[in-house]
Amino acid sequence: MRMYEKGLLIVLSGPSGVGKGTVRKEIFSHENANLHYSISITTRKPREGEIDGVDYFFKTNEEFEKMIENNELLEYAQYVGNYYGTPISYVRKCLDEGKDILLEIEVQGAMKVKNAFPEGLFIFLAPPSLGELKNRIINRGTESDELIANRMNVAKEELEMMELYDYVVENDKVEYACERIKSIITAEHLKKDRVKHRYKKLIEGDK
Amino acid sequence: MRMYEKGLLIVLSGPSGVGKGTVRKEIFSHENANLHYSISITTRKPREGEIDGVDYFFKTNEEFEKMIENNELLEYAQYVGNYYGTPISYVRKCLDEGKDILLEIEVQGAMKVKNAFPEGLFIFLAPPSLGELKNRIINRGTESDELIANRMNVAKEELEMMELYDYVVENDKVEYACERIKSIITAEHLKKDRVKHRYKKLIEGDK
Repeated sequence: MRMYEKGLLIVLSGPSGVGKGTVRKEIFSHENANLHYSISITTRKPREGEIDGVDYFFKTNEEFEKMIENNELLEYAQYVGNYYGTPISYVRKCLDEGKDILLEIEVQGAMKVKNAFPEGLFIFLAPPSLGELKNRIINRGTESDELIANRMNVAKEELEMMELYDYVVENDKVEYACERIKSIITAEHLKKDRVKHRYKKLIEGDK
Repeated sequence: MRMYEKGLLIVLSGPSGVGKGTVRKEIFSHENANLHYSISITTRKPREGEIDGVDYFFKTNEEFEKMIENNELLEYAQYVGNYYGTPISYVRKCLDEGKDILLEIEVQGAMKVKNAFPEGLFIFLAPPSLGELKNRIINRGTESDELIANRMNVAKEELEMMELYDYVVENDKVEYACERIKSIITAEHLKKDRVKHRYKKLIEGDK
Protein backbone atom coordinates (compact mmCIF):
# COMPACT_ATOMS: atom_id res chain seq x y z
CA MET A 1 0.00 0.00 0.00
CA ARG A 2 1.42 3.39 -0.99
CA MET A 3 0.94 5.66 1.99
CA TYR A 4 2.24 8.84 0.45
CA GLU A 5 0.47 11.38 -1.69
CA LYS A 6 1.58 13.71 -4.46
CA GLY A 7 4.09 16.38 -3.54
CA LEU A 8 3.57 20.12 -3.82
CA LEU A 9 4.95 22.15 -6.70
CA ILE A 10 6.18 25.39 -5.14
CA VAL A 11 7.05 28.26 -7.44
CA LEU A 12 9.15 31.03 -5.94
CA SER A 13 9.20 34.08 -8.15
CA GLY A 14 9.18 37.86 -8.09
CA PRO A 15 10.65 40.94 -9.73
CA SER A 16 14.29 40.67 -10.81
CA GLY A 17 16.72 41.82 -8.16
CA VAL A 18 14.40 40.95 -5.29
CA GLY A 19 16.72 38.22 -3.98
CA LYS A 20 15.04 35.02 -5.16
CA GLY A 21 18.35 33.16 -5.49
CA THR A 22 19.56 34.21 -2.03
CA VAL A 23 16.32 33.16 -0.41
CA ARG A 24 16.29 29.84 -2.28
CA LYS A 25 19.90 29.10 -1.25
CA GLU A 26 19.07 29.92 2.36
CA ILE A 27 16.09 27.53 2.27
CA PHE A 28 18.28 24.71 0.97
CA SER A 29 21.19 25.47 3.31
CA HIS A 30 19.17 23.69 6.02
CA GLU A 31 18.00 20.12 6.16
CA ASN A 32 14.67 19.79 4.35
CA ALA A 33 13.12 16.42 4.87
CA ASN A 34 10.75 16.57 1.96
CA LEU A 35 11.63 19.64 -0.09
CA HIS A 36 13.65 19.33 -3.26
CA TYR A 37 15.08 21.92 -5.57
CA SER A 38 14.10 21.72 -9.20
CA ILE A 39 17.40 21.41 -11.02
CA SER A 40 17.46 23.47 -14.20
CA ILE A 41 18.86 22.48 -17.55
CA THR A 42 21.40 24.76 -19.14
CA THR A 43 23.55 24.90 -22.25
CA ARG A 44 26.26 26.97 -20.62
CA LYS A 45 29.55 25.26 -19.70
CA PRO A 46 29.86 23.94 -16.13
CA ARG A 47 31.87 26.23 -13.88
CA GLU A 48 34.61 24.97 -11.56
CA GLY A 49 33.04 22.62 -9.03
CA GLU A 50 29.60 22.45 -10.62
CA ILE A 51 28.23 18.94 -10.84
CA ASP A 52 25.91 17.64 -13.55
CA GLY A 53 22.60 16.59 -11.96
CA VAL A 54 23.28 18.61 -8.81
CA ASP A 55 23.78 22.23 -9.82
CA TYR A 56 22.38 21.86 -13.33
CA PHE A 57 21.69 19.29 -15.97
CA PHE A 58 24.25 20.28 -18.61
CA LYS A 59 23.10 19.83 -22.20
CA THR A 60 24.25 20.82 -25.67
CA ASN A 61 22.37 23.36 -27.74
CA GLU A 62 21.07 20.57 -29.96
CA GLU A 63 19.82 18.55 -26.99
CA PHE A 64 18.13 21.60 -25.51
CA GLU A 65 16.40 22.58 -28.74
CA LYS A 66 15.20 19.03 -29.15
CA MET A 67 13.64 19.23 -25.67
CA ILE A 68 11.87 22.46 -26.65
CA GLU A 69 10.53 20.75 -29.75
CA ASN A 70 9.33 17.73 -27.78
CA ASN A 71 7.61 19.88 -25.13
CA GLU A 72 9.85 18.49 -22.43
CA LEU A 73 10.35 21.87 -20.77
CA LEU A 74 7.96 23.50 -18.35
CA GLU A 75 9.48 26.86 -19.18
CA TYR A 76 12.73 28.14 -20.63
CA ALA A 77 14.55 31.35 -21.44
CA GLN A 78 17.77 32.56 -23.03
CA TYR A 79 20.36 34.66 -21.21
CA VAL A 80 23.63 35.82 -22.76
CA GLY A 81 23.43 33.25 -25.50
CA ASN A 82 22.70 30.29 -23.22
CA TYR A 83 19.50 28.40 -22.64
CA TYR A 84 18.06 27.79 -19.19
CA GLY A 85 14.95 25.69 -18.62
CA THR A 86 12.94 23.51 -16.27
CA PRO A 87 12.61 19.86 -17.33
CA ILE A 88 9.07 18.55 -16.83
CA SER A 89 10.23 14.97 -16.25
CA TYR A 90 12.22 15.75 -13.09
CA VAL A 91 9.35 17.83 -11.66
CA ARG A 92 6.80 15.10 -12.34
CA LYS A 93 9.09 12.40 -10.90
CA CYS A 94 9.47 14.31 -7.63
CA LEU A 95 5.75 15.07 -7.34
CA ASP A 96 4.83 11.45 -8.09
CA GLU A 97 7.24 10.28 -5.39
CA GLY A 98 5.42 12.53 -2.93
CA LYS A 99 8.26 15.05 -2.70
CA ASP A 100 7.70 18.77 -2.66
CA ILE A 101 9.67 20.53 -5.34
CA LEU A 102 10.66 24.18 -5.43
CA LEU A 103 11.21 26.17 -8.62
CA GLU A 104 12.95 29.52 -8.43
CA ILE A 105 12.16 31.38 -11.63
CA GLU A 106 11.44 34.73 -13.23
CA VAL A 107 7.92 36.15 -13.37
CA GLN A 108 7.59 35.29 -17.08
CA GLY A 109 8.48 31.65 -16.44
CA ALA A 110 6.15 31.49 -13.45
CA MET A 111 3.24 32.46 -15.69
CA LYS A 112 4.04 29.55 -18.01
CA VAL A 113 4.23 27.13 -15.08
CA LYS A 114 0.89 28.45 -13.83
CA ASN A 115 -0.70 27.43 -17.13
CA ALA A 116 0.76 23.92 -16.97
CA PHE A 117 0.35 23.40 -13.18
CA PRO A 118 -2.48 25.62 -11.93
CA GLU A 119 -2.58 23.50 -8.75
CA GLY A 120 0.94 24.66 -7.84
CA LEU A 121 1.71 26.89 -4.90
CA PHE A 122 2.76 30.28 -6.25
CA ILE A 123 4.76 32.49 -3.92
CA PHE A 124 5.60 36.05 -4.89
CA LEU A 125 8.76 37.38 -3.27
CA ALA A 126 8.31 41.13 -2.91
CA PRO A 127 10.93 43.75 -2.14
CA PRO A 128 10.37 45.51 1.20
CA SER A 129 8.88 48.38 -0.75
CA LEU A 130 5.58 48.27 1.09
CA GLY A 131 7.23 49.01 4.41
CA GLU A 132 9.42 51.62 2.79
CA LEU A 133 6.47 53.23 1.09
CA LYS A 134 4.62 53.33 4.38
CA ASN A 135 7.54 55.12 6.03
CA ARG A 136 7.80 57.57 3.18
CA ILE A 137 4.13 58.42 3.43
CA ILE A 138 4.32 58.78 7.21
CA ASN A 139 7.36 61.06 6.84
CA ARG A 140 5.74 63.09 4.09
CA GLY A 141 7.34 66.51 4.15
CA THR A 142 10.82 65.19 4.73
CA GLU A 143 10.55 63.20 1.46
CA SER A 144 10.26 64.75 -1.97
CA ASP A 145 6.96 64.22 -3.79
CA GLU A 146 8.91 62.74 -6.68
CA LEU A 147 10.43 60.02 -4.51
CA ILE A 148 7.03 59.12 -3.09
CA ALA A 149 5.51 59.06 -6.60
CA ASN A 150 8.32 56.76 -7.78
CA ARG A 151 7.70 54.36 -4.94
CA MET A 152 3.98 54.45 -5.61
CA ASN A 153 4.61 53.40 -9.20
CA VAL A 154 6.84 50.51 -8.11
CA ALA A 155 4.14 49.38 -5.68
CA LYS A 156 1.53 49.56 -8.44
CA GLU A 157 3.65 47.39 -10.74
CA GLU A 158 4.18 44.85 -7.96
CA LEU A 159 0.47 44.83 -7.25
CA GLU A 160 -0.24 43.89 -10.87
CA MET A 161 2.43 41.19 -10.95
CA MET A 162 1.23 39.46 -7.78
CA GLU A 163 -2.21 38.76 -9.20
CA LEU A 164 -1.45 35.17 -10.29
CA TYR A 165 0.20 34.21 -7.00
CA ASP A 166 -1.28 32.57 -3.92
CA TYR A 167 1.00 34.16 -1.34
CA VAL A 168 3.15 37.26 -1.07
CA VAL A 169 6.32 37.18 1.05
CA GLU A 170 8.17 40.41 1.67
CA ASN A 171 11.94 39.92 1.50
CA ASP A 172 12.74 42.35 4.30
CA LYS A 173 15.30 39.92 5.73
CA VAL A 174 16.39 36.65 4.12
CA GLU A 175 15.87 34.57 7.29
CA TYR A 176 12.39 35.98 7.84
CA ALA A 177 11.44 35.39 4.21
CA CYS A 178 12.61 31.76 4.52
CA GLU A 179 10.65 31.20 7.70
CA ARG A 180 7.53 32.58 6.06
CA ILE A 181 7.96 30.35 3.02
CA LYS A 182 8.39 27.31 5.26
CA SER A 183 5.25 28.27 7.19
CA ILE A 184 3.32 28.50 3.93
CA ILE A 185 4.48 25.02 2.90
CA THR A 186 3.64 23.58 6.33
CA ALA A 187 0.18 25.15 6.29
CA GLU A 188 -0.48 23.95 2.76
CA HIS A 189 0.07 20.34 3.85
CA LEU A 190 -2.44 20.82 6.69
CA LYS A 191 -5.31 22.00 4.51
CA LYS A 192 -8.47 20.06 5.22
CA ASP A 193 -8.81 18.67 1.71
CA ARG A 194 -5.28 17.23 1.74
CA VAL A 195 -5.68 15.67 5.19
CA LYS A 196 -9.18 14.41 4.38
CA HIS A 197 -7.74 12.68 1.36
CA ARG A 198 -5.24 10.87 3.62
CA TYR A 199 -8.05 9.73 5.94
CA LYS A 200 -10.14 8.55 3.03
CA LYS A 201 -7.27 6.61 1.53
CA LEU A 202 -6.72 4.82 4.81
CA ILE A 203 -10.37 4.11 5.45
CA GLU A 204 -11.16 2.97 1.94
CA GLY A 205 -7.78 1.42 1.30
CA ASP A 206 -5.46 2.57 -1.47
CA LYS A 207 -7.27 1.60 -4.61
CA MET B 1 -4.21 57.09 8.49
CA ARG B 2 -5.03 53.70 9.99
CA MET B 3 -2.36 51.33 8.72
CA TYR B 4 -3.70 48.17 10.24
CA GLU B 5 -6.30 45.78 8.96
CA LYS B 6 -8.84 43.53 10.62
CA GLY B 7 -7.49 40.68 12.71
CA LEU B 8 -8.11 36.99 12.11
CA LEU B 9 -10.67 35.01 14.05
CA ILE B 10 -9.05 31.65 14.71
CA VAL B 11 -11.24 28.84 15.97
CA LEU B 12 -9.42 25.89 17.52
CA SER B 13 -11.73 22.95 17.97
CA GLY B 14 -11.87 19.18 17.77
CA PRO B 15 -13.31 16.09 19.44
CA SER B 16 -13.47 16.20 23.24
CA GLY B 17 -10.40 14.81 24.91
CA VAL B 18 -8.10 15.67 22.00
CA GLY B 19 -6.14 18.19 24.09
CA LYS B 20 -7.48 21.55 22.86
CA GLY B 21 -6.90 23.21 26.25
CA THR B 22 -3.33 21.94 26.52
CA VAL B 23 -2.46 23.11 23.02
CA ARG B 24 -4.09 26.50 23.62
CA LYS B 25 -2.20 26.98 26.90
CA GLU B 26 1.07 26.06 25.19
CA ILE B 27 0.40 28.62 22.43
CA PHE B 28 -0.17 31.36 24.98
CA SER B 29 2.74 30.33 27.21
CA HIS B 30 4.99 32.11 24.70
CA GLU B 31 5.03 35.76 23.69
CA ASN B 32 2.51 36.32 20.89
CA ALA B 33 2.82 39.77 19.40
CA ASN B 34 -0.57 39.88 17.82
CA LEU B 35 -2.53 36.85 19.02
CA HIS B 36 -5.10 37.18 21.77
CA TYR B 37 -7.14 34.62 23.60
CA SER B 38 -10.89 35.05 23.55
CA ILE B 39 -11.85 35.26 27.22
CA SER B 40 -15.02 33.34 27.97
CA ILE B 41 -17.88 34.40 30.18
CA THR B 42 -18.95 32.05 32.94
CA THR B 43 -21.45 31.95 35.76
CA ARG B 44 -19.34 29.67 37.89
CA LYS B 45 -17.60 31.14 40.95
CA PRO B 46 -13.99 32.28 40.46
CA ARG B 47 -11.46 29.79 41.76
CA GLU B 48 -8.49 30.77 43.92
CA GLY B 49 -6.26 33.09 41.90
CA GLU B 50 -8.61 33.53 38.93
CA ILE B 51 -8.95 37.14 37.83
CA ASP B 52 -12.05 38.68 36.26
CA GLY B 53 -11.23 39.81 32.71
CA VAL B 54 -8.12 37.63 32.53
CA ASP B 55 -9.21 34.04 33.12
CA TYR B 56 -12.92 34.63 32.60
CA PHE B 57 -15.49 37.36 32.69
CA PHE B 58 -17.49 36.35 35.75
CA LYS B 59 -21.23 37.01 35.53
CA THR B 60 -24.37 36.11 37.45
CA ASN B 61 -26.98 33.79 36.01
CA GLU B 62 -29.27 36.75 35.42
CA GLU B 63 -26.61 38.71 33.57
CA PHE B 64 -25.73 35.68 31.42
CA GLU B 65 -29.34 34.95 30.50
CA LYS B 66 -29.83 38.60 29.61
CA MET B 67 -26.84 38.30 27.23
CA ILE B 68 -28.40 35.24 25.62
CA GLU B 69 -31.64 37.17 25.15
CA ASN B 70 -29.81 40.15 23.64
CA ASN B 71 -27.79 37.97 21.23
CA GLU B 72 -24.54 39.12 22.79
CA LEU B 73 -23.01 35.64 22.73
CA LEU B 74 -21.33 34.04 19.77
CA GLU B 75 -21.96 30.62 21.29
CA TYR B 76 -22.68 29.24 24.73
CA ALA B 77 -23.20 25.99 26.56
CA GLN B 78 -24.05 24.67 30.00
CA TYR B 79 -21.81 22.34 31.99
CA VAL B 80 -22.60 21.07 35.49
CA GLY B 81 -25.15 23.79 36.10
CA ASN B 82 -22.93 26.66 34.96
CA TYR B 83 -23.02 28.70 31.77
CA TYR B 84 -19.98 29.22 29.58
CA GLY B 85 -20.03 31.47 26.53
CA THR B 86 -18.12 33.67 24.10
CA PRO B 87 -19.02 37.36 24.17
CA ILE B 88 -19.31 38.84 20.69
CA SER B 89 -18.27 42.33 21.83
CA TYR B 90 -14.76 41.28 22.94
CA VAL B 91 -14.18 39.31 19.73
CA ARG B 92 -15.30 42.21 17.54
CA LYS B 93 -13.21 44.70 19.52
CA CYS B 94 -10.05 42.63 19.01
CA LEU B 95 -10.69 42.08 15.29
CA ASP B 96 -11.44 45.77 14.75
CA GLU B 97 -8.18 46.68 16.48
CA GLY B 98 -6.35 44.41 14.01
CA LYS B 99 -5.60 41.75 16.61
CA ASP B 100 -5.91 38.04 15.89
CA ILE B 101 -8.14 36.30 18.37
CA LEU B 102 -8.19 32.61 19.18
CA LEU B 103 -11.27 30.75 20.40
CA GLU B 104 -10.85 27.30 21.89
CA ILE B 105 -14.25 25.63 21.81
CA GLU B 106 -16.17 22.41 21.34
CA VAL B 107 -17.22 21.21 17.91
CA GLN B 108 -20.86 22.25 18.54
CA GLY B 109 -19.79 25.80 19.43
CA ALA B 110 -17.45 25.96 16.42
CA MET B 111 -20.38 25.26 14.11
CA LYS B 112 -22.29 28.22 15.59
CA VAL B 113 -19.26 30.48 15.16
CA LYS B 114 -18.91 29.31 11.56
CA ASN B 115 -22.43 30.56 10.88
CA ALA B 116 -21.73 33.97 12.40
CA PHE B 117 -18.14 34.34 11.09
CA PRO B 118 -17.72 32.24 7.95
CA GLU B 119 -14.53 34.22 7.18
CA GLY B 120 -12.89 32.82 10.33
CA LEU B 121 -9.97 30.40 10.26
CA PHE B 122 -11.23 27.02 11.46
CA ILE B 123 -8.60 24.60 12.72
CA PHE B 124 -9.54 21.04 13.61
CA LEU B 125 -7.30 19.47 16.21
CA ALA B 126 -7.26 15.74 15.51
CA PRO B 127 -6.02 12.94 17.75
CA PRO B 128 -3.01 11.07 16.35
CA SER B 129 -5.40 8.38 15.22
CA LEU B 130 -4.40 8.62 11.59
CA GLY B 131 -0.83 7.68 12.36
CA GLU B 132 -2.02 5.00 14.76
CA LEU B 133 -4.43 3.62 12.23
CA LYS B 134 -1.69 3.51 9.65
CA ASN B 135 0.52 1.49 12.01
CA ARG B 136 -2.29 -0.86 12.84
CA ILE B 137 -2.98 -1.52 9.19
CA ILE B 138 0.71 -2.02 8.44
CA ASN B 139 0.98 -4.42 11.39
CA ARG B 140 -2.17 -6.28 10.41
CA GLY B 141 -1.90 -9.77 11.81
CA THR B 142 -0.41 -8.65 15.10
CA GLU B 143 -3.56 -6.53 15.69
CA SER B 144 -7.04 -7.92 16.18
CA ASP B 145 -9.58 -7.15 13.44
CA GLU B 146 -11.83 -5.67 16.09
CA LEU B 147 -9.21 -3.11 17.14
CA ILE B 148 -8.63 -2.08 13.55
CA ALA B 149 -12.37 -1.84 12.92
CA ASN B 150 -12.75 0.36 16.01
CA ARG B 151 -10.04 2.71 14.84
CA MET B 152 -11.60 2.82 11.40
CA ASN B 153 -14.86 3.97 12.93
CA VAL B 154 -13.13 6.68 14.94
CA ALA B 155 -11.38 7.88 11.78
CA LYS B 156 -14.70 7.95 9.92
CA GLU B 157 -16.28 10.09 12.63
CA GLU B 158 -13.35 12.49 12.57
CA LEU B 159 -13.55 12.68 8.81
CA GLU B 160 -17.17 13.80 9.05
CA MET B 161 -16.46 16.36 11.77
CA MET B 162 -13.58 18.01 9.92
CA GLU B 163 -15.77 18.98 6.97
CA LEU B 164 -16.43 22.56 8.12
CA TYR B 165 -12.79 23.28 8.95
CA ASP B 166 -10.07 24.87 6.86
CA TYR B 167 -7.11 23.04 8.37
CA VAL B 168 -6.50 19.81 10.25
CA VAL B 169 -3.69 19.61 12.81
CA GLU B 170 -2.82 16.26 14.31
CA ASN B 171 -2.04 16.53 18.02
CA ASP B 172 0.73 13.93 18.01
CA LYS B 173 2.84 16.15 20.26
CA VAL B 174 1.75 19.42 21.85
CA GLU B 175 4.80 21.40 20.68
CA TYR B 176 4.42 20.16 17.11
CA ALA B 177 0.72 20.97 17.09
CA CYS B 178 1.51 24.51 18.32
CA GLU B 179 4.15 25.05 15.67
CA ARG B 180 1.73 23.91 12.98
CA ILE B 181 -0.98 26.24 14.24
CA LYS B 182 1.47 29.16 14.23
CA SER B 183 2.52 28.29 10.68
CA ILE B 184 -1.11 28.33 9.60
CA ILE B 185 -1.65 31.77 11.14
CA THR B 186 1.56 33.10 9.55
CA ALA B 187 0.60 31.73 6.13
CA GLU B 188 -2.91 33.12 6.40
CA HIS B 189 -1.50 36.64 6.82
CA LEU B 190 0.61 36.19 3.68
CA LYS B 191 -2.26 35.26 1.38
CA LYS B 192 -2.21 37.34 -1.77
CA ASP B 193 -5.60 38.92 -1.19
CA ARG B 194 -4.66 40.15 2.29
CA VAL B 195 -1.33 41.58 1.13
CA LYS B 196 -2.89 43.08 -1.99
CA HIS B 197 -5.37 44.85 0.21
CA ARG B 198 -2.47 46.41 2.15
CA TYR B 199 -0.84 47.62 -1.07
CA LYS B 200 -4.09 49.03 -2.35
CA LYS B 201 -4.76 50.87 0.88
CA LEU B 202 -1.35 52.50 0.67
CA ILE B 203 -1.57 53.35 -3.00
CA GLU B 204 -5.10 54.68 -2.85
CA GLY B 205 -4.86 56.06 0.65
CA ASP B 206 -7.13 54.92 3.46
CA LYS B 207 -10.54 56.14 2.42
